[in-house]
Amino acid sequence: MALPQRAGAEFLGTFWLTFGGCGSGVLAAQFPELGIGFAGVALAFGLTLLTMAFAVGHISGAHFNPAVTIGVWAGGRFKAGDILPYVVAQVAGAIVAAAVLYLIASGKPDFAVGGFAANGYGELSLGKYSLLSCLLIEVVCTFFFLIIILGSTSARASAGFAPIAMGFALTLIHLISLPVTKTSVNPARSTGPALFAGGAYIGQLWLFWLAPIVGALLAGWVSKALQPEE
Amino acid sequence: MALPQRAGAEFLGTFWLTFGGCGSGVLAAQFPELGIGFAGVALAFGLTLLTMAFAVGHISGAHFNPAVTIGVWAGGRFKAGDILPYVVAQVAGAIVAAAVLYLIASGKPDFAVGGFAANGYGELSLGKYSLLSCLLIEVVCTFFFLIIILGSTSARASAGFAPIAMGFALTLIHLISLPVTKTSVNPARSTGPALFAGGAYIGQLWLFWLAPIVGALLAGWVSKALQPEE
Amino acid sequence: MALPQRAGAEFLGTFWLTFGGCGSGVLAAQFPELGIGFAGVALAFGLTLLTMAFAVGHISGAHFNPAVTIGVWAGGRFKAGDILPYVVAQVAGAIVAAAVLYLIASGKPDFAVGGFAANGYGELSLGKYSLLSCLLIEVVCTFFFLIIILGSTSARASAGFAPIAMGFALTLIHLISLPVTKTSVNPARSTGPALFAGGAYIGQLWLFWLAPIVGALLAGWVSKALQPEE
Amino acid sequence: MALPQRAGAEFLGTFWLTFGGCGSGVLAAQFPELGIGFAGVALAFGLTLLTMAFAVGHISGAHFNPAVTIGVWAGGRFKAGDILPYVVAQVAGAIVAAAVLYLIASGKPDFAVGGFAANGYGELSLGKYSLLSCLLIEVVCTFFFLIIILGSTSARASAGFAPIAMGFALTLIHLISLPVTKTSVNPARSTGPALFAGGAYIGQLWLFWLAPIVGALLAGWVSKALQPEE
Repeated sequence: MALPQRAGAEFLGTFWLTFGGCGSGVLAAQFPELGIGFAGVALAFGLTLLTMAFAVGHISGAHFNPAVTIGVWAGGRFKAGDILPYVVAQVAGAIVAAAVLYLIASGKPDFAVGGFAANGYGELSLGKYSLLSCLLIEVVCTFFFLIIILGSTSARASAGFAPIAMGFALTLIHLISLPVTKTSVNPARSTGPALFAGGAYIGQLWLFWLAPIVGALLAGWVSKALQPEE
Repeated sequence: MALPQRAGAEFLGTFWLTFGGCGSGVLAAQFPELGIGFAGVALAFGLTLLTMAFAVGHISGAHFNPAVTIGVWAGGRFKAGDILPYVVAQVAGAIVAAAVLYLIASGKPDFAVGGFAANGYGELSLGKYSLLSCLLIEVVCTFFFLIIILGSTSARASAGFAPIAMGFALTLIHLISLPVTKTSVNPARSTGPALFAGGAYIGQLWLFWLAPIVGALLAGWVSKALQPEE
Repeated sequence: MALPQRAGAEFLGTFWLTFGGCGSGVLAAQFPELGIGFAGVALAFGLTLLTMAFAVGHISGAHFNPAVTIGVWAGGRFKAGDILPYVVAQVAGAIVAAAVLYLIASGKPDFAVGGFAANGYGELSLGKYSLLSCLLIEVVCTFFFLIIILGSTSARASAGFAPIAMGFALTLIHLISLPVTKTSVNPARSTGPALFAGGAYIGQLWLFWLAPIVGALLAGWVSKALQPEE
Repeated sequence: MALPQRAGAEFLGTFWLTFGGCGSGVLAAQFPELGIGFAGVALAFGLTLLTMAFAVGHISGAHFNPAVTIGVWAGGRFKAGDILPYVVAQVAGAIVAAAVLYLIASGKPDFAVGGFAANGYGELSLGKYSLLSCLLIEVVCTFFFLIIILGSTSARASAGFAPIAMGFALTLIHLISLPVTKTSVNPARSTGPALFAGGAYIGQLWLFWLAPIVGALLAGWVSKALQPEE
């Protein structure tokens, strides 16, 4: 498949991940009486990935996440030269998604931007978790996210099921870590909303680029050790 | 498969989508203490599609939705001449489903029809979202719904998994947009309950025909650009 | 596969359906603060079927429900002579499951048997729905349950996915109808708990044998019309 | 596959099961307003197994649980000589996971260790269930867990779907039994958190080794009777 189609698929997929995941959080999580809470937001994030991985996985591989692109490269399954166009398409998709979400959300009479689903640590952590806790949980969760992606798409795994494994991994990761960092494991998803949540959130973005990428690199290497013959 | 069977499958599928999705909303969403909330209603809508797509997808393609039929046509996968009988069967299924649901729901001593799961914008939006917000979220959500349907049923996707992708896409869409429009993305599903919710809701039906169809047409065209060789 | 193994599989499957579905309702639905509510009970019922259909579907066909056995017979896929042993195994499994659940539940210091997840209409309906509403919703839900079972296990459907369709159909049915009848669609599941809930519930058991069987028979016939060539 | 890789996969899988399942309970279950409750914790436990079974099932078989290893041996599908290294890797994974979770959780300003997701009976049961109730529910649930694992991975079952059956079985088991024992069915998962919850919880660990292993052994034998020709 040619690069424009692949980058287009990454743009759309990351748009959907950011729009759907953050959108469910901003619009529906705390709705009086009927709100979906953390569990609903976790399900939404996972289903964005599950659905678009079934839809365009055969086009781009369905990364929708710079850490995934880097982890898949570290695992020996992706060309270094394609990293940059993938990451650009992903970050662009996330930013446009956050803009569209902002436009929709601001059509509510009593709208206030608040954290706008942006990730944070310390004072900006929902549960006020320390920088160390936030760093650690993002590294551990991204590490396992990539172990699952690389394992479920390996040549020996049952073909076709990877989108289910990947999507539900993302749901699971949110069930664990939403109270801590609002869950990144994805620098693109972190970047879009931070631009709208503003100031302090932008100042914390570095963590949500660093930690996921570190976790993904570790997983790429461990994955090679687990499956030596691939 | 002959058209009567295909139209019959579309009638049944759209009945189940409307009965199950709107039924969970009307009967179970706000039940004291045990109610399923938005998350349960979102799951119900998605599972109506997932289950009937497994059951009759091999008969009719499992559209259950005029916007899907039009989007699949725009994507080059459906004959123009079959659009009308499909849409008629879908709208009939949704209206009969709303009637049966009304009959059941009204067997509760303190029944009040209320919004009866009908879609609305502005004053009739659950969160009082503006017309523009409602239009935009319906276009965006239907667009991605069709991208997922066309992608997961394309020749290169893993065969058999499409009902999972389609059903969970509908769940996800509800997790995002229930507070905004009560989620249409489906003109037939909108039409059935509006007839019972009455007056003002019927006056807003135009949006829930227009926006999903626009989103679906856009997706049909984008889908062809993404997968040029099909 | 020989009848003893098949009946054994039906016994175990119906035990698990009744123990898991009703058990989640009795033990976990209303637990303070953390309770799973209707949505959790709906998920539990569906997952009992999904899991045991994957486990023993290749042995017995995974009915776990007299209405399913009768509906599959009406759809032309089951031998009349095997109906009785299947139904006996199913009812036995449900009764033993209710007994074990009673033993466990009564180990709580403040245990009160209450409705013990038994089905009811009128005064015994959770939402006080009328006999007619209860009859109607049970017929409609069992009808679609069988349409989904017969469709997803038909020769043209994708092999292997039927347990997912069947299990999530049962989840969906509970999301709709728990407030109305506590959801039967399964005479065996109704019989077990009624024996422990006692008096009035036993007097209402007839409805939860009649309605599911009527719905299942209708579905068997409609299914043949939808898929004439099978 | 060589034993070091297989043990490594068991270590990682049991880490993820304990970290993700117990982590969702400790960090997210009771978060004000947005908490995921028992249903979210049940989903998290199941998804840890589903995801890692897709990821490394082809390496180690995805037990992540001493009772599963013993039950699979009793069912005639595992070599006795591999039990010990598997169990050691599993227990190590669970203990390291609990330690990492403790480190993260303690980064919250008002952190108190509490039960730390450790299993308990009697006074340490969430619902104060008796020892007998707790023993019984753990035996029954582990029995069915193994029936599902052995059945869904048998030669006649549809290949590839077992991780879905296994993962959702674990979710279901938690939906039933979280209020009773906080759900073990897995001695390794019980051991990790107990070391951090301390004193009384360690004194009750024997039950969560005994009951799951008894249930698993019974299932191994019943499974052979159900599927005599394998």
